[in-house]
Amino acid sequence: MQKKNKPLLFDPFTTRENNQKLLKQKAIVVWLTGLSGSGKTTLANALQHFLLQNGHITKLIDGDELRSTLNKDLNYTQQHRTENIRRAAEVAKLFLDSGVITCCAFITPTEELRTLSKTIIGENDYVEIYVKCSLEECEKRDVKGLYKKARKGDLINFTGINAPFEVPEHPALVVETQHQTIQECLTQIYDLVRLRISVK
Amino acid sequence: MQKKNKPLLFDPFTTRENNQKLLKQKAIVVWLTGLSGSGKTTLANALQHFLLQNGHITKLIDGDELRSTLNKDLNYTQQHRTENIRRAAEVAKLFLDSGVITCCAFITPTEELRTLSKTIIGENDYVEIYVKCSLEECEKRDVKGLYKKARKGDLINFTGINAPFEVPEHPALVVETQHQTIQECLTQIYDLVRLRISVK
Repeated sequence: MQKKNKPLLFDPFTTRENNQKLLKQKAIVVWLTGLSGSGKTTLANALQHFLLQNGHITKLIDGDELRSTLNKDLNYTQQHRTENIRRAAEVAKLFLDSGVITCCAFITPTEELRTLSKTIIGENDYVEIYVKCSLEECEKRDVKGLYKKARKGDLINFTGINAPFEVPEHPALVVETQHQTIQECLTQIYDLVRLRISVK
Repeated sequence: MQKKNKPLLFDPFTTRENNQKLLKQKAIVVWLTGLSGSGKTTLANALQHFLLQNGHITKLIDGDELRSTLNKDLNYTQQHRTENIRRAAEVAKLFLDSGVITCCAFITPTEELRTLSKTIIGENDYVEIYVKCSLEECEKRDVKGLYKKARKGDLINFTGINAPFEVPEHPALVVETQHQTIQECLTQIYDLVRLRISVK
């Protein structure tokens, strides 16, 4: 730029604060972990809908969606499953830094992966919710037909069948989709979330 | 979920529309292309600042920032430079779909790469701005000392030195940071942008 210009002093790191003020909300990342078919995306959608109705700006980052766009170059090896979570968390962080309330729906099967996402996002802004549902029930639902495929041996590293799911050690909340209605789960989640996103 | 629940009919694809309504803005992606040191990030910062002052919610996606977070696994081979742009465009699309006005500052040296980003983002939402500045001037500025390193042979595929920069064929706007002040460039950009983001 020409010398006669005064430097424009704008700190990009204040974007979050400024946006939060404009949006009248505090940003957090709600990270839903649980087996395939446990209801993560359904709950994330419901939460997003509810927050929107209450005037909040949100972003839903869903495993299936990301796998067909940003992460379409990744397969299901352990290395790529880790990379899948790393990128998801980095994207969530970008939204967080924009003041947007972000819901992530990813199986995130191990404590190591959940620690990775928490570390990238930052412990203070990371709210982990365990969407609990038994393997038997998830397999019975089998909405996407993936359990059937996995049992046939057509899928590698399918959580619950030929890859482990470690029960989250320190989730902020556990919802049990096998025994509760969507509305009950949502109420529990919102009771936790609203305290964190309120500007008062 | 338990059978007694009615299905929750929420279409994720309406998020952009709903958010835009709440934010009182239309989202676009402003893609700044130009040599290293041409002033892309400075202008993107200034634009973001200006839009914020006018009540808009924006996100700046900057090449240097992304290289240290989401894209930190990438190097500077042609293959990885392409992947760098692909991911940036996918992230921009996620912000666009959230109703957020997004500014991207990436060298994007070839028509092929610019076509890639335009294709991912969608032609209707992609506003390409060529931040024009001569190689001589950029090299003289050399804010990050990269041209010096590249001349020494320490950097591979450094645009302008040992990798080509193709002049954009169909930018929506050209700003010339060598001959105009920041304010003049910004005014030109804003004149173009405000027509696209206005809800009226």
